[in-house]
Amino acid sequence: MTPTRRAPLADAVICTVDVVLLTLHQHTLHVVLSRREKAPNQGALALPGGFVHTQEDDSAWHAAARVLQDKAGIDSPYLEQLATWSGPDRDPRGWSVSIVYYALIPETLVPAHSADVQMHPVYALPLLPFDHGQMVAQAIERVRNKSQYSSLPVYLCGDAFTLPHLQTVYEAVLGEPINKVSFRRKMDEMDMLEPIEGALESGGAHRPAQLYRLKPEFQRSLSVVERGINA
Amino acid sequence: MTPTRRAPLADAVICTVDVVLLTLHQHTLHVVLSRREKAPNQGALALPGGFVHTQEDDSAWHAAARVLQDKAGIDSPYLEQLATWSGPDRDPRGWSVSIVYYALIPETLVPAHSADVQMHPVYALPLLPFDHGQMVAQAIERVRNKSQYSSLPVYLCGDAFTLPHLQTVYEAVLGEPINKVSFRRKMDEMDMLEPIEGALESGGAHRPAQLYRLKPEFQRSLSVVERGINA
Repeated sequence: MTPTRRAPLADAVICTVDVVLLTLHQHTLHVVLSRREKAPNQGALALPGGFVHTQEDDSAWHAAARVLQDKAGIDSPYLEQLATWSGPDRDPRGWSVSIVYYALIPETLVPAHSADVQMHPVYALPLLPFDHGQMVAQAIERVRNKSQYSSLPVYLCGDAFTLPHLQTVYEAVLGEPINKVSFRRKMDEMDMLEPIEGALESGGAHRPAQLYRLKPEFQRSLSVVERGINA
Repeated sequence: MTPTRRAPLADAVICTVDVVLLTLHQHTLHVVLSRREKAPNQGALALPGGFVHTQEDDSAWHAAARVLQDKAGIDSPYLEQLATWSGPDRDPRGWSVSIVYYALIPETLVPAHSADVQMHPVYALPLLPFDHGQMVAQAIERVRNKSQYSSLPVYLCGDAFTLPHLQTVYEAVLGEPINKVSFRRKMDEMDMLEPIEGALESGGAHRPAQLYRLKPEFQRSLSVVERGINA
């Protein structure tokens, strides 16, 4: 006997979120991967992700923040939507949608290397399941483009940093050297930094350098300029 | 008696697509709206949209193309993902996701004004249901930004156009005048146009102007430049 079923309101679609979590290690962008606990692709390193939980998530953004906390213990100050992947074949469980976010954190916030959470350089990632490879590629392109025009790379720096250090971070993200004078001019234009009173970094052979931090109003939103860093 | 239910694989999420369909009428961006046939908001003018159909759609992109065809009879050469809206309260039917696309078409492709399909200027839209107002605002911002650096506005022009006409289209989209010399230089740099042999537009009081069209390789993908039209 066929059980009576109420006609569904809409076709059943599996709704997940995935997060491309980026950090900087040894002057190279790295992606933080977590090991999948369940099938499909159980045991594979993959982007931290999971189902939307309709009872607790107020939006896909909240689902992504929850997943980052659950799978990597991370509360990222910057978590932005990248794009959505969809289709009948990307997940063997059925027609699925993944709303993908990207986040940038300083290396100090990355959990210690373990079997379950690892960072890998973007140029030497393990083979990722599903369409996670495409997601990483698109996230890196977005971060490079956006870094030309905004304060985005500062999220890789931690709470206090010198201007020379910030410049090396921009250079690592953009993959090219930046002229020091135009970099300083651009930082002035962005008007997002403030010196930390009395805080100097002792520079070894160099003279001590002033430490800076983001102004409060830019701690969770970007400062944007019209012309790029290298313009 | 409670009927036995198989535990769902994942929480049920309603998955829809919506399309911000833009055109240019009297030098002003317009949005093409269609009247909703069903509740919720039955009878309201809204963005063309609908459920993903898992049996026929290969992706959300295909769902958006199908919806445009069904609701407005339009096959847009350019249809690009904008962003995804989600949450428990945006649709009274339940926790829902809308993957939103935007498209640009010449006015000649817009169906004749009717009770069911209408275009309205972006500065005087009727009150739109759901979060469709936010979607339109974000689409216009994206189109303006992208038009600074790409061939995007050409999709508003139809198959053949003069350079002076194309310049007025760019100006209408960007909302500002463009210097003629730098506009011509930028068009050369984009290298996306070809003259239509022997085709001239008789210009009334003016001397006849050469008609151009997009080169075949740019008919469904953009030509992009690094520095903006007004840089």
